[in-house]
Amino acid sequence: MADYSAPLKDMNFLLNHVADSRGFDQIEHFADYDPALLSAVLEEASKFAGQVLSPLNQSGDIEGCHFNDGVVTTPEGWIDAYRQFCDNGWLGLALPEAYGGQSLPRFIAAAVHEMWLSANLSFVMFQALTQGAAEILLTARDERLQQRYLEKLVTGEWATCMSLTEPGAGSDLGNTRTRAIPQEDGTYLISGQKIYITYGEHDLAENIVHLVLAKTPDSPPGAKGVSLFIVPKYKVDESGQCGALNDVRCVSIEHKTGLHGSPTCNISYGDDGGAIGELVGEENRGLEYMFILMNEARLSTGQQGVAIGEMGYQRALEYSLERTQGRDALTGETNVLIARHPDVKRMLMGLRAQTTALRALSYQIASRLDLAELASEDRAAHLRFVALMTPVFKAFSTESGNLMAGTTIQIFGGMGFVEETGVAQLMRDIRVTTIYEGTTGIQANDLVFRKIQGDQGEALKELVVEIEADFAKYIALDIAGGEKEMLAQMLGVLSECADYILQQGKAGRESLLCGAVNFLELMGVACCSWMMMRIAVAAHEQKAQSSDTVYLNNLIALSRFYFAHFTPKVLALHKTVITADAGIRDYLIED
Amino acid sequence: MADYSAPLKDMNFLLNHVADSRGFDQIEHFADYDPALLSAVLEEASKFAGQVLSPLNQSGDIEGCHFNDGVVTTPEGWIDAYRQFCDNGWLGLALPEAYGGQSLPRFIAAAVHEMWLSANLSFVMFQALTQGAAEILLTARDERLQQRYLEKLVTGEWATCMSLTEPGAGSDLGNTRTRAIPQEDGTYLISGQKIYITYGEHDLAENIVHLVLAKTPDSPPGAKGVSLFIVPKYKVDESGQCGALNDVRCVSIEHKTGLHGSPTCNISYGDDGGAIGELVGEENRGLEYMFILMNEARLSTGQQGVAIGEMGYQRALEYSLERTQGRDALTGETNVLIARHPDVKRMLMGLRAQTTALRALSYQIASRLDLAELASEDRAAHLRFVALMTPVFKAFSTESGNLMAGTTIQIFGGMGFVEETGVAQLMRDIRVTTIYEGTTGIQANDLVFRKIQGDQGEALKELVVEIEADFAKYIALDIAGGEKEMLAQMLGVLSECADYILQQGKAGRESLLCGAVNFLELMGVACCSWMMMRIAVAAHEQKAQSSDTVYLNNLIALSRFYFAHFTPKVLALHKTVITADAGIRDYLIED
Repeated sequence: MADYSAPLKDMNFLLNHVADSRGFDQIEHFADYDPALLSAVLEEASKFAGQVLSPLNQSGDIEGCHFNDGVVTTPEGWIDAYRQFCDNGWLGLALPEAYGGQSLPRFIAAAVHEMWLSANLSFVMFQALTQGAAEILLTARDERLQQRYLEKLVTGEWATCMSLTEPGAGSDLGNTRTRAIPQEDGTYLISGQKIYITYGEHDLAENIVHLVLAKTPDSPPGAKGVSLFIVPKYKVDESGQCGALNDVRCVSIEHKTGLHGSPTCNISYGDDGGAIGELVGEENRGLEYMFILMNEARLSTGQQGVAIGEMGYQRALEYSLERTQGRDALTGETNVLIARHPDVKRMLMGLRAQTTALRALSYQIASRLDLAELASEDRAAHLRFVALMTPVFKAFSTESGNLMAGTTIQIFGGMGFVEETGVAQLMRDIRVTTIYEGTTGIQANDLVFRKIQGDQGEALKELVVEIEADFAKYIALDIAGGEKEMLAQMLGVLSECADYILQQGKAGRESLLCGAVNFLELMGVACCSWMMMRIAVAAHEQKAQSSDTVYLNNLIALSRFYFAHFTPKVLALHKTVITADAGIRDYLIED
Repeated sequence: MADYSAPLKDMNFLLNHVADSRGFDQIEHFADYDPALLSAVLEEASKFAGQVLSPLNQSGDIEGCHFNDGVVTTPEGWIDAYRQFCDNGWLGLALPEAYGGQSLPRFIAAAVHEMWLSANLSFVMFQALTQGAAEILLTARDERLQQRYLEKLVTGEWATCMSLTEPGAGSDLGNTRTRAIPQEDGTYLISGQKIYITYGEHDLAENIVHLVLAKTPDSPPGAKGVSLFIVPKYKVDESGQCGALNDVRCVSIEHKTGLHGSPTCNISYGDDGGAIGELVGEENRGLEYMFILMNEARLSTGQQGVAIGEMGYQRALEYSLERTQGRDALTGETNVLIARHPDVKRMLMGLRAQTTALRALSYQIASRLDLAELASEDRAAHLRFVALMTPVFKAFSTESGNLMAGTTIQIFGGMGFVEETGVAQLMRDIRVTTIYEGTTGIQANDLVFRKIQGDQGEALKELVVEIEADFAKYIALDIAGGEKEMLAQMLGVLSECADYILQQGKAGRESLLCGAVNFLELMGVACCSWMMMRIAVAAHEQKAQSSDTVYLNNLIALSRFYFAHFTPKVLALHKTVITADAGIRDYLIED
């Protein structure tokens, strides 16, 4: 399998010319960053991804993780790559310098993170966990825990994992059964079973800091009675050093269809009387804290769709520029490169267009997250944007990632079905991304009910205004083609759906639930179309000052392609959203 | 993994009330068949599928095939199942009684075949090969070859395989390099390499009859110079018995992401001077003969989409009626069955609706194939229908099958990603079906250029007339909902696309090539919508004479669901078809 080569040109273009940087120049924290620094960071990351992580991707898939009596061994090369990853400072890229991080803006970290995910998704799954855990500790403002854990986490000396799911409680965290009994010394005794714990046990770090959801005695029922605890694999003494083994045991690891190099653990806490845990923040606020990590993980998961799309595109492009087959349908020439067949070109452009649009969206979200934290004004609006986009990006990008893995295999033909070429791994690896960190259905409900109805459509209306502004810039360009009408229709459909959702009262709730996933897809297509308009506008502007005409014209062609091959889906999705309960109400599932 | 249980009620309903049986009563060959016989055959097949084939499906996936120095060993249980399959007469169900078959109509055989594919896709892949090979021999009218091979094939004593693909020639068979040198005794010496040969070598049958495409010396270049040869693994003597090993060698088998139980072989012919081959029919007509088998294989492959959809639906329904999770979004009740969540119900109905529509379409094609062979009139029109539908059904059903495998995993959540539950196997097994027997792109070109432009749209126009007639019946029913408008739009879009395709001259060829796959999908959705109209009409009619109201009402609800969740896609696809080359022409792939 060929190595990964980061799409540096696209990344630089999107970060410099497309992602929203309104007000960045007024942020003191960003004073040091300019396109040259950005480019240098991306260049270094690209080397690391291509030279260290990517070569381990297929071997890790083939070897997988090993489990033996509670001990998990990662694939060959994992330990060394982890050490290098941490030593080079990649783990704490966007975490505070005070704790060993590099305090880089998120919009740069997002680009770097995508490289890791493309190069070796299984390997790097620990990073979003560390980023999220650190943010929980920073938010919960518990100085003692910060002192004990933050630096060790940021430097990678210790790893972390997120222990949410239980055998009976997958998506429904309010149903948590793991118990936490307070002790006289202020610690808690934790006992319970957790499943599907990514990197819950492994051999990469000296200690593993488990973040565990559990219920204290007499806590309120449901989600409001869940607390968050730190349960280290090795107990931590007062000097901050690892002590004896805690009552934490990995019972087994899952035999999964993909992500073989990432151990998915079943963990038992407290088999011998109780694992020592420390409360994070306040009791009963566990879900609130966990959602800090969860939102982080959702954005990282969304980037997994982009990353697999990119990897698929690179592999498919390379293959289709080597493989000859058949006759050119227009010139009659025989044994032509398959990239010259219009249907193959359509698939290749589809991969690049969807990946590019989603990548632009991920940078847009990341830069707004920076602005939400640091901007001198409009922080609330930036945060609303991020909140609205998180479910859309997470779900639409991963659903797209699955389709793109399929398209990659399709371009490879029979060779795609054979494991040696490595593209079937893309399909297997990406498959769970529409499930973990909240299924597509859960993201859709979050979008429709919490993010739209919950704020009376404010964030959505702000978004529509933004898209309209970029649409006005796009139609002012001198670009041929009838796609402008399609984009106008898209804006109309988006507003109609917004009104429809906001008008539904209690009686319309079932219909909304039946069409929520379709609406989320509509939002995904609309937001990607928006990004493609911005890309076309930026490419057009750059043409005045750059001689890289072929590249810039290709970006414009790619946007037109998106408007013809992706944007029209909103027409169908709109119909489905407004008639979503047809037949569903009358159908008896147990017939 | 749960065993497969054939959907006998749905199958009987579709065969008796939905599939087109115009004129069946006038066909002498069908005189013996009535619904009771049909039901009895399906019942027996259902037992065999559930009791013999289905239990070997997951174990075959885990064990896979073994290769050792040219010898291929199938998974445990395969040999016994094969013997039972042949002894019970399932192999030759639709083949002539004169050669040991049962001469059943194809529309019954189609239903039975789907059961095998659901229960154990890897195992039963040999059946379409035998069916097709027998038809080639029947068509080529070579009495000597018929005497030597037909009975052995129909009874399963000998197996067959289709040797088309070469390392340099996948989809492009005109590029065949395998050579056939005529000998004085009338045989040929065959030499060359073939890849991706399904069941090219195995331990199930006494002999394997390879059907090999090769070129004779001085044959015309390209597709018109390819001939078809029978190359048996063991030479066949004058008395029809197996003799010495022929110069045929299995070099390796592929390590595939799915279909582990089906050996995919790389075969070398003539390493020791040449394998003895017998010409089938006449020289240079090889592709013509092979396409008899290929069309057979395409219909079988299309059924694989239906079969995986059904298996996925059964597994997902079972799981969602056991697994509790979360809160009922309408009543607030906690720990409800996940089947009660509207989004899960939407996915379940999506699986059943798409599977049912495709199943109805497969029966429709099969019954027209019967009529094309046996009807007293309109045979040419029936054949045109089958020719038009073959690429649509093959490609749309397999593309749908891939999506449905994904939906099944989605309903299982995290459990779907774990191999033990067996649903990831559905995704892995189905993946190649959009590739083998002609990729989706190839089917789309066949549809647009050969099947529509090639007959001046006659078959398509006849189809539109048929759909319009059923639409008239559907809108005359007393069924609520606004889907009638959607269906009327669909008919409009279909006619517009037909006109668009027929109007394109040479200049419009590139645009057609860029949107051919989209048009094929549009045709697939339209034909399935047509089937759902027929199902609704038939269910409505049956309500007058049946007390099975819940079942019949569910079918009507399912059709309404289809019109709201699938039919609208035609709106988007139409837009894409007519703007398909936007951006593609201007884009330089090697930038």
